[in-house]
Amino acid sequence: MHSPAMHSPADGTTTVTVLRDVRPWGGARSDLHVAGGVITAVVPHDANAPTDGVVVDGGVIDGRGLLALPGLVNAHAHVDKSWWGKPWVSYGGEGGVQGRIAHERAHRDELGIPGVDVTLAVLRESIRTGTTAVRTHADVDLGVGLRGIEVVREAVAALGGAVTAQVVAFPQDGVLRRPGVLDLLDAAAAAGAEHVGGLDPATIDRDPVGQLDGLFAIAERRGVGIDVHLHDGGDLGAFQIELIIDRTLRAGLQGRVNVAHGFAVGQLAVPRQAELVAAMGEAGITMTTVAPIGAAPLPLHALRDAGVAVGLGTDGIRDLWSPYGTGDLLALTTQLARLSGFRYDEDLVTAARIASADAGRFVGRAVHDLVVGAPADVVLVDAENVPDAVVRAPRRALVVAGGRVVARDGEVLV
Amino acid sequence: MHSPAMHSPADGTTTVTVLRDVRPWGGARSDLHVAGGVITAVVPHDANAPTDGVVVDGGVIDGRGLLALPGLVNAHAHVDKSWWGKPWVSYGGEGGVQGRIAHERAHRDELGIPGVDVTLAVLRESIRTGTTAVRTHADVDLGVGLRGIEVVREAVAALGGAVTAQVVAFPQDGVLRRPGVLDLLDAAAAAGAEHVGGLDPATIDRDPVGQLDGLFAIAERRGVGIDVHLHDGGDLGAFQIELIIDRTLRAGLQGRVNVAHGFAVGQLAVPRQAELVAAMGEAGITMTTVAPIGAAPLPLHALRDAGVAVGLGTDGIRDLWSPYGTGDLLALTTQLARLSGFRYDEDLVTAARIASADAGRFVGRAVHDLVVGAPADVVLVDAENVPDAVVRAPRRALVVAGGRVVARDGEVLV
Repeated sequence: MHSPAMHSPADGTTTVTVLRDVRPWGGARSDLHVAGGVITAVVPHDANAPTDGVVVDGGVIDGRGLLALPGLVNAHAHVDKSWWGKPWVSYGGEGGVQGRIAHERAHRDELGIPGVDVTLAVLRESIRTGTTAVRTHADVDLGVGLRGIEVVREAVAALGGAVTAQVVAFPQDGVLRRPGVLDLLDAAAAAGAEHVGGLDPATIDRDPVGQLDGLFAIAERRGVGIDVHLHDGGDLGAFQIELIIDRTLRAGLQGRVNVAHGFAVGQLAVPRQAELVAAMGEAGITMTTVAPIGAAPLPLHALRDAGVAVGLGTDGIRDLWSPYGTGDLLALTTQLARLSGFRYDEDLVTAARIASADAGRFVGRAVHDLVVGAPADVVLVDAENVPDAVVRAPRRALVVAGGRVVARDGEVLV
Repeated sequence: MHSPAMHSPADGTTTVTVLRDVRPWGGARSDLHVAGGVITAVVPHDANAPTDGVVVDGGVIDGRGLLALPGLVNAHAHVDKSWWGKPWVSYGGEGGVQGRIAHERAHRDELGIPGVDVTLAVLRESIRTGTTAVRTHADVDLGVGLRGIEVVREAVAALGGAVTAQVVAFPQDGVLRRPGVLDLLDAAAAAGAEHVGGLDPATIDRDPVGQLDGLFAIAERRGVGIDVHLHDGGDLGAFQIELIIDRTLRAGLQGRVNVAHGFAVGQLAVPRQAELVAAMGEAGITMTTVAPIGAAPLPLHALRDAGVAVGLGTDGIRDLWSPYGTGDLLALTTQLARLSGFRYDEDLVTAARIASADAGRFVGRAVHDLVVGAPADVVLVDAENVPDAVVRAPRRALVVAGGRVVARDGEVLV
């Protein structure tokens, strides 16, 4: 247990054998046993055993009775493009989606985007605040080709399991309007991207049927998922979700298709919203949201009741679209809860589950919770209970990923 | 300079004589000289002089080149009622304004609300994150009488100048619908409350003219200001703002009347909004917002252009209305900026000014900035510039209030 072999030689991390005296989901004090990066036992903690603060001792970590949550899951990220850690970049583009796309194309080279260092900076900051798995959209376009996907893979590999990533090959600059992009998406899928992405089929490509048919053909051919950015609102957004539902059912891709943002769902009046949500549930469509301040909130309860899994993501962090964002998914959970008008404890717990345990499916994990057989991804915070953690988003005292201590007291160790 | 007399005997604070090597508003490195709780000089910092980290040495504080902002101003608080620092209180009331009022009346006694300890807990947490002045609404009703105001005064006095407060005598439970409350408000004003408050004259009292006439009569008689909570939206809210404008002009109370929340202003279509905003400016009405997630944002640029000063506040913090809120006004500035869609540097700076320098009028300060003659209230953060501080809300490295160091490295000293 106390062998130096427990210490990873490449960095300052420690391999955990026992994470003792933590309160999973705010429940009874427990010891989590870990081997091979997996939780192997969850047993009641012996409160009479001595505690010595959060200390690392040959793999036995004292959690001091802190609240434990599963590793946070960022279900919608753009880790290939950011200027996190670089000097301030004043936003200088025009407004609107198209204005931001154009601004990004014009200036990303100056910032080394996409780049491994850029991606490492974002991922390390995310790990610091407790994120241990991401689904990230990597730009695929005629300028960078598949380089964005490659830098994500390189950065994740360099972090040695501190975070896992699924990649969406993301046509940020459009699909049909940029001949050649559909072939790039197909090549990305052939090369291992877990999902192909889309972007506002109506307002960007001006051909919703054409873009979606192109994406679904790739998904069927390559056996990958689909994850479509859909900013289009109201009836136009709802119409495209209906097109997505039809094609999902026809292709037998239930459970493999995600609508990101999907502002329309929050904007529809209830009768129409209820119909659409029910149809999404029947087709196994999932949704991801970035809990945008000022937007109509998604009807989280209705979506979950209909079987539509909802994931939470950061969107871009300090990029050429916007200087906002820190990657702190627990702080974003506060935002999601506030946006949803959650006040009751059970709702606040739901928000925490959306950001962690319930989001395994967005990052290719069959089980992601503080249970035997799950990856040993654990976040400790000094909070009284889960609702307290959600409304206050305290500093992360300890982050364990894949059975290694990867952050402690707000400092990242990888 | 190094006399022990510089150390305040009552607590762990230090009286500042020079705050050296700081960057006011992100500008050139400067030394701020302080005497009698006031900034007496702002001079260029000599970069060749040695620095030793943020150390306290007989009143000379080294700011290590950190970004300096004026003390943050919480222009809309409820510091008399909170359970901050107490065990978690699950929200158990009904929805809506009336549901929350009823829930609060039923349970405040159990939590010792209003109470000096409650108020001290909130104020100390606010000071910790850089707030040095508040305008707080203290509940005045048939149950607590003026006790809420008294506890605020006692708590502020106990903090020895670490924060200053203006009080609004606030009829949280209604005015006309509770016979006797108008007399209590009058008594509060006679006893020194700086403002009398109101609450949704239409939907709570069911008599907008009656409530407003009652408040304006007190304001004219006692020479105090008016600060009305107005949740009522759309045309109903706008109508009541028009009633307020009329009475403000008639009473000659320009510059003394504030509309809090005023959701209606953000909800109106632009032509009507522009008319209303112009009329508010002409009457010298001010507004305070708590930047509510999910609400229509106030048109900040239009309001400021029309001469309508806007203040930012936290609203209640962990109270019987909602478990949300931490009192961190810089984090709330991030929220205001996001809600307003601010991306350009100058807009992000405007958000910071709304939360600090431009808010002096809400707390009875003629000047509140990093300039000679202003109160020596300074917040240091490790940020590159003001926009960076606004989008990231870093931990407060040092908080000076009234010329004393009242918080350091995230720890409150009073």
